[in-house]
Amino acid sequence: MTATAPFYLDCDTGIDDALALAYLLAAPAADLVGIGAVSGNVSAAVGARNTLDLLQLAGAADIPVALGAHDPLAGSFGGGAPWVHGENGIGEVSLAASPAPLASESAAEMLVRLARTYPGTLRVLAIGPLTNIAEALRLEPALPSLVHSVTVMGGAALAPGNITPVAEANIWNDPEAAALVLAADWDITLVPLDVTMGSVLEDHHRQELLASSAPVPRALGEMLGYYFRFYEGIYGRPCSAMHDPLAAALAVGAVQAAVAPVVRAAVDTSTGPSRGQTVCDMRGLYAGYPEVRGARCRVVLSLEQDFAPHLVETLLGHFSMVESAGSLVVAPV
Amino acid sequence: MTATAPFYLDCDTGIDDALALAYLLAAPAADLVGIGAVSGNVSAAVGARNTLDLLQLAGAADIPVALGAHDPLAGSFGGGAPWVHGENGIGEVSLAASPAPLASESAAEMLVRLARTYPGTLRVLAIGPLTNIAEALRLEPALPSLVHSVTVMGGAALAPGNITPVAEANIWNDPEAAALVLAADWDITLVPLDVTMGSVLEDHHRQELLASSAPVPRALGEMLGYYFRFYEGIYGRPCSAMHDPLAAALAVGAVQAAVAPVVRAAVDTSTGPSRGQTVCDMRGLYAGYPEVRGARCRVVLSLEQDFAPHLVETLLGHFSMVESAGSLVVAPV
Repeated sequence: MTATAPFYLDCDTGIDDALALAYLLAAPAADLVGIGAVSGNVSAAVGARNTLDLLQLAGAADIPVALGAHDPLAGSFGGGAPWVHGENGIGEVSLAASPAPLASESAAEMLVRLARTYPGTLRVLAIGPLTNIAEALRLEPALPSLVHSVTVMGGAALAPGNITPVAEANIWNDPEAAALVLAADWDITLVPLDVTMGSVLEDHHRQELLASSAPVPRALGEMLGYYFRFYEGIYGRPCSAMHDPLAAALAVGAVQAAVAPVVRAAVDTSTGPSRGQTVCDMRGLYAGYPEVRGARCRVVLSLEQDFAPHLVETLLGHFSMVESAGSLVVAPV
Repeated sequence: MTATAPFYLDCDTGIDDALALAYLLAAPAADLVGIGAVSGNVSAAVGARNTLDLLQLAGAADIPVALGAHDPLAGSFGGGAPWVHGENGIGEVSLAASPAPLASESAAEMLVRLARTYPGTLRVLAIGPLTNIAEALRLEPALPSLVHSVTVMGGAALAPGNITPVAEANIWNDPEAAALVLAADWDITLVPLDVTMGSVLEDHHRQELLASSAPVPRALGEMLGYYFRFYEGIYGRPCSAMHDPLAAALAVGAVQAAVAPVVRAAVDTSTGPSRGQTVCDMRGLYAGYPEVRGARCRVVLSLEQDFAPHLVETLLGHFSMVESAGSLVVAPV
């Protein structure tokens, strides 16, 4: 990607969503033209609130934020993951409230409008449950021919899940929507736990963010304190996986996949023990993943480079030069 | 394991079953006291026939063979895998027909009888679908307290399946039986595709078997010619995975697991895309698999040693000293 490309971000902000949002603002190749919020880590309403406040803090309050689906296509919102992201979704860090209003359209309506505004060039980056994307497909069945590409943080191919033994949170939170999105007539890049769990932000990276004089990296560093405490139970040390920012960096093209076979993939929507699994057909593993005719899902399994240093460098480099519009208040945690 | 222990083998013979059977006859620590046949690679009847003929060829026609279930617990036998094992199950190699009769009891009845005959010491090694073992659990609910251990070749934990993207053949062929066996009140060692697909017999190993003056290794070498042609499509070179013999060697204790976490495991019996999956909870991966209270399923992921040389050496060492009772006829393939 040489020039700047328009991006629609769909998120459930969320600590790693906050990092992905900040990364997209910092990445020179991305022009963030709209954001939709969906229930996942937090409710869609809380996620939208966090997104507005982060944009304000980052001096980017002009980017429109649309409220998306509160409930998944089947069933109702389960309450999020406060033990991972905090009750407020951003690790109990308090941000000044942005005065910017929500968009008057829904997230799905915004995605359809932007796809028509930027035909063939809009990048869709989904880092929450896929409810809004599925609803946009219902609103505009031609959506796949309008957008440039779709990148999804979600699923687990050969790695364990993080909600059940086989289901990852974004897919688990709306398997029916994910099934529709993976079955639609477009190529998808899936950024699953296989690669995000190996992209670890260590404590020294967090300290670099905290040491910044700019409020956005400092706020992200504070949020990561909460996130690290959850992930200490997973990795056995204070650190965290970098799910959503990695999907953003891959979508932007700033980070390259090393192994990323294009395979057939479906989502388990049964009520059995595999509900919410991304059933990726990885059987080509033993022959180096030969090409599969008709396959549409590129599953990123490994990277050409270590991701965390690039993430920290990009955030520090950009936000040290940005005039912040908000003031950071960090509540005791 | 220092002394000889009694083994009940449940199999669907099958080329790699034939290798496992020969290995068990060759292993000094195993006393094979009974064999049950089940439908899988071939029908139970064909598998029993192959087993009898192999025992005859190996000079071990005194070991009783019982016919087991033709159909899985739910549904009916699907016809086996002739493209993997040949129409006759042993790679179109023709063996002299053994005059030995089948046992008058069923495989499940034999297993229950042997468990009572060798209380606390009987090793159960299941290398086919688990129908017979599930039926034995129905016949004798106290079976788990009677047997010493259960080793199952089957499933896929973090590796792809070999029938569907997530289901391995032995479990796929009778998920309902596998679910009962994994839920029973005993510790199970699961030998899944994760480790068997990495235990590869290469062409030079096959040539060593073919060069033997003894009929059993030669017959196995001939069968492997058929098996190699199937696996060439998987690995891209003439070779094969060693599923069943590896499970035998682990059960015997001649080969040691390197990484083998004890985790919770269940079998997907839904009709969704994950039917037949062994849903093993591998979420402890990132912390080196800490102990899981109440877990009963030891999942072998890697070995302390390379398996193929041990297999070939054991077979050649034993059968060069055994008087064969049969004559080998190899049909053109």
